[in-house]
Amino acid sequence: MAERFANRRDIRFLLEEVFDVNSLTQYEYFKDHSAETFNMVVDTVMKMGSDLMYPVFQEMDKYPPRYENSQAKVHPAVRIFLDECGRGGWLNADWNYAEGGQQLPNMIKFTYWFVFSAANYALGAYAQLTAGAANLIREFAGQEIKDQYLDKLCTGKWQGTMALTEPDVGSSLGDLTTSARETDQGYYLIKGKKIFISGADTDGADNTVNMMLARIQGAPAGTKGISLFVVPKYRINEAGELEYNDVHCDGIEHKLGYRGCPICQLTMGENNDCRGYLVGKPGRGLGYMFQMMNEERINVGIGAVAKATAAYYAALEYCSQRKQGRRPGVKDQSLPMVAIIEHPDIKRMLLLQKSIAEGSLSLALQVSKYIDLIKVLPDEEEREKYSLLVELLVPVVKTYPAEAGIMATSAAIQCLGGYGYCQDFPVEQYYRDIRIDPIHEGTTGIQGQDILGRKISLGNGKAMQYFVAELLAAIQSAHKFENLQAMAAQLLQSLNELRSVTAYLLDLSAQGKIEEFLADGVLYLEMFSLIAIGWQWLLQAVKANEILQAGSSLRENDKLFYHSKIYTCRYFFSYELNKIYGLVKRLSSTEAITVEMEAKFLQV
Amino acid sequence: MAERFANRRDIRFLLEEVFDVNSLTQYEYFKDHSAETFNMVVDTVMKMGSDLMYPVFQEMDKYPPRYENSQAKVHPAVRIFLDECGRGGWLNADWNYAEGGQQLPNMIKFTYWFVFSAANYALGAYAQLTAGAANLIREFAGQEIKDQYLDKLCTGKWQGTMALTEPDVGSSLGDLTTSARETDQGYYLIKGKKIFISGADTDGADNTVNMMLARIQGAPAGTKGISLFVVPKYRINEAGELEYNDVHCDGIEHKLGYRGCPICQLTMGENNDCRGYLVGKPGRGLGYMFQMMNEERINVGIGAVAKATAAYYAALEYCSQRKQGRRPGVKDQSLPMVAIIEHPDIKRMLLLQKSIAEGSLSLALQVSKYIDLIKVLPDEEEREKYSLLVELLVPVVKTYPAEAGIMATSAAIQCLGGYGYCQDFPVEQYYRDIRIDPIHEGTTGIQGQDILGRKISLGNGKAMQYFVAELLAAIQSAHKFENLQAMAAQLLQSLNELRSVTAYLLDLSAQGKIEEFLADGVLYLEMFSLIAIGWQWLLQAVKANEILQAGSSLRENDKLFYHSKIYTCRYFFSYELNKIYGLVKRLSSTEAITVEMEAKFLQV
Repeated sequence: MAERFANRRDIRFLLEEVFDVNSLTQYEYFKDHSAETFNMVVDTVMKMGSDLMYPVFQEMDKYPPRYENSQAKVHPAVRIFLDECGRGGWLNADWNYAEGGQQLPNMIKFTYWFVFSAANYALGAYAQLTAGAANLIREFAGQEIKDQYLDKLCTGKWQGTMALTEPDVGSSLGDLTTSARETDQGYYLIKGKKIFISGADTDGADNTVNMMLARIQGAPAGTKGISLFVVPKYRINEAGELEYNDVHCDGIEHKLGYRGCPICQLTMGENNDCRGYLVGKPGRGLGYMFQMMNEERINVGIGAVAKATAAYYAALEYCSQRKQGRRPGVKDQSLPMVAIIEHPDIKRMLLLQKSIAEGSLSLALQVSKYIDLIKVLPDEEEREKYSLLVELLVPVVKTYPAEAGIMATSAAIQCLGGYGYCQDFPVEQYYRDIRIDPIHEGTTGIQGQDILGRKISLGNGKAMQYFVAELLAAIQSAHKFENLQAMAAQLLQSLNELRSVTAYLLDLSAQGKIEEFLADGVLYLEMFSLIAIGWQWLLQAVKANEILQAGSSLRENDKLFYHSKIYTCRYFFSYELNKIYGLVKRLSSTEAITVEMEAKFLQV
Repeated sequence: MAERFANRRDIRFLLEEVFDVNSLTQYEYFKDHSAETFNMVVDTVMKMGSDLMYPVFQEMDKYPPRYENSQAKVHPAVRIFLDECGRGGWLNADWNYAEGGQQLPNMIKFTYWFVFSAANYALGAYAQLTAGAANLIREFAGQEIKDQYLDKLCTGKWQGTMALTEPDVGSSLGDLTTSARETDQGYYLIKGKKIFISGADTDGADNTVNMMLARIQGAPAGTKGISLFVVPKYRINEAGELEYNDVHCDGIEHKLGYRGCPICQLTMGENNDCRGYLVGKPGRGLGYMFQMMNEERINVGIGAVAKATAAYYAALEYCSQRKQGRRPGVKDQSLPMVAIIEHPDIKRMLLLQKSIAEGSLSLALQVSKYIDLIKVLPDEEEREKYSLLVELLVPVVKTYPAEAGIMATSAAIQCLGGYGYCQDFPVEQYYRDIRIDPIHEGTTGIQGQDILGRKISLGNGKAMQYFVAELLAAIQSAHKFENLQAMAAQLLQSLNELRSVTAYLLDLSAQGKIEEFLADGVLYLEMFSLIAIGWQWLLQAVKANEILQAGSSLRENDKLFYHSKIYTCRYFFSYELNKIYGLVKRLSSTEAITVEMEAKFLQV
């Protein structure tokens, strides 16, 4: 078993040294905080991870929720963990004091989501879903709903969910059919079915609060007819008691991974008595959801990073202990075997995992810092800049660790050989758990369409310009270190390749060739991601160099740590970033094979 | 549920049209066969797959073998299937008539292993293991052992296994410690432990025959001290009855996938009464095993192809039926949704799967044909040529479908979205099942060392020269078709890149930089594989073109089929083969990061 699911040292490096989270305390909103409070938060959640979450990580997979008497029964750890989240204020720590929050930076919030997910992804999901539901209510609901729900959600007494998907409606939300009939009692009567709703039935909390999309009767077809409702499993009656709200759990899915959290099928209104409470204005439901979507997508990305990270530490520990074989050229079988971490191919697989995990975490924290700055910077243009960067980078933060994380967790299995394939070791579970991430909160296909079809053109191309400027600044700062100059040059060349490919694709769009333009959005996103992660590695290597140069009194372990960052950066540039050259060939091709070829050619 | 796990039409195309299996009947050894018998064989095994195997594919995963009273209890289908294999003669159909075989070509044998694996990989494994054990005995054992075991194995009454791995000895077989003490009774007393032995305990057969590596007491350390023994679970006593041979199953592994077949831990000689019967000469055990290794590795590759193929058909069926969204630019939500196979990104994911599955099957059959030719060609130089090509290509046949198959089955999951993650659909099982293939019968790391460290230099570089010549011939034949000229040129350029990279790496070796030379063997194998699969796609496209040009009277479905081959070839060249350009950058780098960086930098 891995003893570490996340590296406290690496979190400190990224938060304090690379992104200087403490600099945020200069702003009014964060002024009560300090390096000490931030450190205390991270230490506390690491301890929660170690004490409460990681010990039941494999158990929750082995004994997934059961469906009994029309109810989902979950692991007892769920209630304990939600209670603890409520007590610690983790579900709304970023909210302002007036709302009951602690005005913690987003960077810190995403850091503790990362720690929770690394310790036990399925368990962490209950909290993230609840926080997400609470956020929607806080942002868009009227006071009465806020009074009824926020405290229960934020204390972890009630479970929150996001109820979007329907049996025939996954990515095309405009087609959803769950209906809401207005009454004169201040509520709507909801009727319909939802599927794939995480945490929508549970005995780990006293109630479930579904944030549900539905179409008010008479509303237009498509996305404009969709409204957002609070549809609790138990509503509060006039006596202030909970009564059943005709939200029936029809069953739970048996899944590849992410097994600790039930994915539910719901039927609303079997007895025509399911009440939904409108949030905000009619017809604005999808808009509200999408205003929360960036945060949800970053959460998914962070969850994927976390799983890849935990798998990496499990593999690292195994490879450090397991002895097998000898160095090349050593033929004498009487000599002792070496730990397999001595073999270059094992080091390659470990660096692959490390570079994906730590590179993606860095990008997620970079974007979190932008979100914090948007909140506090006085200058409007600056705020706009960071908003555009967040919009542009969210598909990358969500997708790169999800897709590359499959490779990373697969490499973790490979490091363990046959043991990696067995359930005594945790790596096969990470491999299963992470496979949900390219699917939920917008598939990789959707993210590819998003970045290419929408994001790179945002603000008349300003989003992309800001991105280029950030990279050029990083390249500039790397140039002063001899050991980084080649990498700085490589990143610049990669960026130029991206600009050419982007121009070529936008030209297709300008010619009205929309299908051709978007067909390889997923590959474009992959290329973009490699460059974005390369940028983050260069930033980390620059910081490591600066510290190594400045600090002659560094402890030996710190020296190793900073050098490891430079090695991993070199690995990423040589093994991963170079992959763009295959992608460039495809993305600049004039052959639109997947558009040209009709489906019938596959159906023979 | 997918209705097809393999495509009979594609098998016919490859066997008859691309590789002209019928041409083998011109040789004495195969002269009793004809197109009819070959077709009958394939039809029969397809029917076995549909009737016996595929119906229990998911069930055998859901209810894996249980370990009860020191025995593994397997699914009842195992006995039925092994009986059927025995009756049909499938376990030794390639043997000659005198040995009880049917003198069927290797091409046909690998085709039916493919069909079995596609229908139900775990079930097929029982047969492959038994055939492998029988083959070892036939090839190397004395007459007495043959008389006792071959008939029982070939009729499927007894289960065969390959017992190599030990608790601390995976890839470094030279370190194994299971011991054999000679007696004057004609047998050896075996003592030791083996782990990860597929099928080593089962109630699906009346006995288990372990082909086991052990070290005779007093033998030298390392690989030269290893001998091969038959170590049955029940030995035949003087009365001709079965009696327990002190081979104890200590337990079975709980695995990510491949769950229908038990992977056992064995203890031999707890009561000092485990008898082993020497096969061949002492000290030659590893050599014997390795003479069978090519076949075993091709089997693994074919198993991976089969899983990727079955996953592809499940995804294809789903995408053809599932409706979601509309074509880009269609904003009118009242228009009906289209089947998702109409979306270019879905077509891309299907072509990815198809190109990996059909390209790998093609290469496996190509190599099978070489094996058949080695058996029958009169000219020694020709036989040597094909032997060298087989040696060179086996790591590719084994590894490419295993590693790319992870991508392919992951894409199958992605095609199904959330449903792909659920156990109601079979794709998540293929994703789990295929993950064993980069591990067993030599990990991907071992295969990378093999091709780079041994195979490309084989026959003083002749193996590589023959490979180049085969590709040049294919390129030549493609040049006469206008629609293939660009691809022919691309393959030529890729081949030249491979030759440059190979020369660069061999130069490192010549300089004595052995670790640097071998460090990226896995990446070299990946590059080599992309080019080898590109070659196979070009061959298929050439054949499709030839038939389309010749046959104006082709049926519509055949036309679609041949055009689909050309589309898939174009996909592979544009999306997959171009990946070599990233690999070339890395493989020609002078920075040996994974050699230079000591392990301690990862351990902070």
